[in-house]
Amino acid sequence: MTPSLRPIGIFDSGLGGLTVFNAVRRLLPRENLIYFGDTAHVPYGSKSAAAVTAYSLEIARFLRGKKIKLLIVACNTASALALDELRKNLDIPVIGVLEPGVRRAMAVSKTRRIGVIGTEATIKSGAYTRKIREIEPSAKVYGLACPLFVPLVEEGWWKHRVTRLVASEYLNRLRPAKIDTLILGCTHYPVIKETIARAAGAKVELIDSAETVAQEARELLNARGLARKTGKVKIKVYVSDDPARFALRAANLPAGRLGSVALKRFS
Amino acid sequence: MTPSLRPIGIFDSGLGGLTVFNAVRRLLPRENLIYFGDTAHVPYGSKSAAAVTAYSLEIARFLRGKKIKLLIVACNTASALALDELRKNLDIPVIGVLEPGVRRAMAVSKTRRIGVIGTEATIKSGAYTRKIREIEPSAKVYGLACPLFVPLVEEGWWKHRVTRLVASEYLNRLRPAKIDTLILGCTHYPVIKETIARAAGAKVELIDSAETVAQEARELLNARGLARKTGKVKIKVYVSDDPARFALRAANLPAGRLGSVALKRFS
Repeated sequence: MTPSLRPIGIFDSGLGGLTVFNAVRRLLPRENLIYFGDTAHVPYGSKSAAAVTAYSLEIARFLRGKKIKLLIVACNTASALALDELRKNLDIPVIGVLEPGVRRAMAVSKTRRIGVIGTEATIKSGAYTRKIREIEPSAKVYGLACPLFVPLVEEGWWKHRVTRLVASEYLNRLRPAKIDTLILGCTHYPVIKETIARAAGAKVELIDSAETVAQEARELLNARGLARKTGKVKIKVYVSDDPARFALRAANLPAGRLGSVALKRFS
Repeated sequence: MTPSLRPIGIFDSGLGGLTVFNAVRRLLPRENLIYFGDTAHVPYGSKSAAAVTAYSLEIARFLRGKKIKLLIVACNTASALALDELRKNLDIPVIGVLEPGVRRAMAVSKTRRIGVIGTEATIKSGAYTRKIREIEPSAKVYGLACPLFVPLVEEGWWKHRVTRLVASEYLNRLRPAKIDTLILGCTHYPVIKETIARAAGAKVELIDSAETVAQEARELLNARGLARKTGKVKIKVYVSDDPARFALRAANLPAGRLGSVALKRFS
């Protein structure tokens, strides 16, 4: 198969990566896409680095078997913990969600005081702090785990007062840090972006990695002559557990039509 | 080994089962216990029946290898979805958390209008409704999934106003049912029992399965001459991912000292 005709593979622990999937679909409307949601292991945010790396490699091998030309790790936890291993083990380009988000934050921030919210595992890994300090060693980085955001998004309480209350409880902890830029370090969070923005305060700029990841994917494909420009588009979605539940939940997210969801269980 | 000296095996998807573990420890203080928390797959509540059954069988086989004399399934989701399979595949008695809770509820309820709260998978399985109807076909059963309770317990927000708000939001949905008895159909829930009780209203009696399961275990062991009456006690705890995180969280739960937590990963 001509390399440019091959699909792009996108994976996440579950639903959150659909925000990235959606952005990629909008920016690269002619690309064939395969989405993988690891619903047997969701959430990654409370799992160990060893476990998340093993799951990520298994999914990457499966997608590689489907002849993908590019792998997008649409999960911040997997990007924080498994990106190096994935790059070591794959012969195609791999894009994570951390680096594009960090670059965008550094372009936007004036005070160099940057907040990062994400899952426990992402924040604990310190991956964001390292990436930001690589670009600017003097930057101040304030990481905060927000473990209830993912369940609230999954529950569909996107504008619920409980979500507002949880958001202000979490974001208040960042007040003393006086950040001017806040990275949404979890692909679930863009779904409740408005609530988070209000809790963070009007002076704080929010960085949604989904958009920047899709831009990075477009640039990479164009630079390598791998972009698909015409033709009918095929979308394929796999999950590792309970396709019906995934389809039902996904229908409530701004991800467009997914078609049927297939089951791929790993033993 | 004399059968009575063998340990009791207790498993859950994660931390919640420690409420059962704790009750067993209090009621059967001379028994050796092995606890298994399937932290690689937690939470079970949003997984399929097939997945939960496969995980449960794997854990049961592991514990059987440790020569347990009794298996307690300290997880309502696994009890609802996998108990028959476990009994079919094991040559030792298996106690789940559903039946003791149901029997206690039927002993307590006057109006025969019974509420059950639990995870999505437990409620969707209809297992509680079936069990209650087996005892009393005319009973009215009102099931309600409360997916945010487990993350709130895991976050440690046991008396937080967010938890109170979520509890009243959920429990208000049961008001029109005019129940007089509410089964806590998830082993995490006893941790926030007071908050749930307040939201349910003073007229509703709460059924905490942990206590009744421990009683059932004691009766079963006594009846079969399998109880251990004297000697030093050995407690062993295994998890399938991240023992350090488990130990840290467990320390905040009323489960007594656990000692070291060992890792047993399934491939």
